[in-house]
Amino acid sequence: MAIELTTQSALGLLLGDPAGVGPQLAVRLLAEPLPAQVRLIVVGRRAWLRRGAQQAQLPEPDLPAMALADLDTVPIDCPILLEPEGDDLDRVPVASVSREAGTGCMASLRTVADLVARGVLAGFLYGPMHKQSLQLGGSRHPDDAALLTELFECPASAHEINILDDWCTSRVTSHIPLAEVPARVSAPGVLTAIEQLHAVMQNLNLPDSRIGVAGLNPHAGEGGLFGDEEVEVIGPAVEEGRRRGIPVHGPFPPDTLFVRLADGQFGGAVTMYHDQGQIAIKLLGFARGVTVIGGLPVPVATTAHGTAFDIVEQGTARPHSLINALKVCSSLVTNNRKWSDAS
Amino acid sequence: MAIELTTQSALGLLLGDPAGVGPQLAVRLLAEPLPAQVRLIVVGRRAWLRRGAQQAQLPEPDLPAMALADLDTVPIDCPILLEPEGDDLDRVPVASVSREAGTGCMASLRTVADLVARGVLAGFLYGPMHKQSLQLGGSRHPDDAALLTELFECPASAHEINILDDWCTSRVTSHIPLAEVPARVSAPGVLTAIEQLHAVMQNLNLPDSRIGVAGLNPHAGEGGLFGDEEVEVIGPAVEEGRRRGIPVHGPFPPDTLFVRLADGQFGGAVTMYHDQGQIAIKLLGFARGVTVIGGLPVPVATTAHGTAFDIVEQGTARPHSLINALKVCSSLVTNNRKWSDAS
Repeated sequence: MAIELTTQSALGLLLGDPAGVGPQLAVRLLAEPLPAQVRLIVVGRRAWLRRGAQQAQLPEPDLPAMALADLDTVPIDCPILLEPEGDDLDRVPVASVSREAGTGCMASLRTVADLVARGVLAGFLYGPMHKQSLQLGGSRHPDDAALLTELFECPASAHEINILDDWCTSRVTSHIPLAEVPARVSAPGVLTAIEQLHAVMQNLNLPDSRIGVAGLNPHAGEGGLFGDEEVEVIGPAVEEGRRRGIPVHGPFPPDTLFVRLADGQFGGAVTMYHDQGQIAIKLLGFARGVTVIGGLPVPVATTAHGTAFDIVEQGTARPHSLINALKVCSSLVTNNRKWSDAS
Repeated sequence: MAIELTTQSALGLLLGDPAGVGPQLAVRLLAEPLPAQVRLIVVGRRAWLRRGAQQAQLPEPDLPAMALADLDTVPIDCPILLEPEGDDLDRVPVASVSREAGTGCMASLRTVADLVARGVLAGFLYGPMHKQSLQLGGSRHPDDAALLTELFECPASAHEINILDDWCTSRVTSHIPLAEVPARVSAPGVLTAIEQLHAVMQNLNLPDSRIGVAGLNPHAGEGGLFGDEEVEVIGPAVEEGRRRGIPVHGPFPPDTLFVRLADGQFGGAVTMYHDQGQIAIKLLGFARGVTVIGGLPVPVATTAHGTAFDIVEQGTARPHSLINALKVCSSLVTNNRKWSDAS
């Protein structure tokens, strides 16, 4: 996935939760040589960036600041810093859940939504945020995708796609109790997850377009012995996907689907619930994975890992995932016209 | 785990489902040099062994046959072959589910149960069996553990422990529909899974005795946002385990527990449902894993992989898991006195 940006639009880089590893990851990313066509607008408080630099033991990035009101077009000299406004934003406790951290994330996200609406940003990426801090900061949502759906006033729910190296996964349900999963796995939901994954795979020009779909139950129900969702719900959705021209197969036993993926039988996997995919992804590439939030007006990517409070003060967080998020976001922006046309 | 057998008892080796890869795996195992103290009684039809040898393109093992009635003590010259009796046992279709295959497995298991009852076998291992064939052959059970509980007339249910290299996992629920999992995760069930895992880890002399416990929900419920089983059920069971002197920790987010395990933070993991552990185990070592069936009168081990019908006729199945099952079974037999004393 080479970084290619054919337009002169900028990408937003949000620091994520200022209490977590996001700021130090952004400092490390900004210390890398960026391709000339990537023009970054960094959204966050300078105090957060300074603390991230101290944690990472790197120089503080020397970014000129601009005010939101002055940003009607993409500035010539990027990267620049745009500081969201709000009370107590420079007094966020480190490595813990807090209202101040959540307020800072919410202010950053609103700033970005404004820039997207004005056409300044063609896409954005963000460092990891913490759900409990977000809720203390005013979010009423269980995850980033639902929060972004509201902030960007989207008609349909945004959804997560996880990307690791050359392959992708989508899921039918996400941040809900396991007890609610079976009732929420519907044929239309499975078909939507297949179609969303197919669209992102096309836009990333992944080498293998074949998709494998997981069952819900152990051994994919083993012929109905332990559950019938594979026969009644998932199988028919896979059939409909094939009828629509998508190279999709399954349902397969959940515990062998990712072995097949790692063996090169598929380029994408559709999972039924959060941990079905996340257990595999975190084992296969904890530090590299990228999450795309699909269904928003512009491409949005973030790290697959979380705020990692346990290593914030050691400053040892590795920036591979955030750097990959930048690559993925750039690639999706390049293909965005095609994507928008197709949706 | 060195193979050590201090008694003169024999181990049983069942070929598993004769339609699957079990016979060719047994042929490959028998072609390896066995430690002198391992005395094997192979249970299966000679016709199955012959077909397995043809598939593996190896010579048919030259095993002397004995009749069940003559086996009151362990014979001097092992390995020997003991052929279970029954109609159609030599006419099992290859690489498919059938009544004949299931009947063959059931006859083999009954033969072994007889030998265990007579004190001839100190433990046994078996090649992979297929649940649907077993049911066509007369089993009324969803998995091996439940079937063996009945055949060995055990007072409490047998349970699976999975072993990969130097670490182990147990699970609170197993072959049931995902929809039934949340209601079946109870504090006594979690505590039992912790204690069973602890006992097996002690008997295998694993280097790290620490156990990590998975949550049930995404992010282990993230402080109650997506489910409260971690707070209400799993956490208290972990506390009780610690009170009983077991070095057990958690509950942890399911998608990072196995990353911690692979990083050396724990030697064992307790999972709440089948795929939570199996997705990780199959990714980390599909071909090597061993399953122990605990709670039976003698140690019993089998392969973590299944019948692999798709590669039976290619003859390419790798015997590492069955060989590891032999090592684990031998090690447990050596420590069996301690185990029995402790239970």
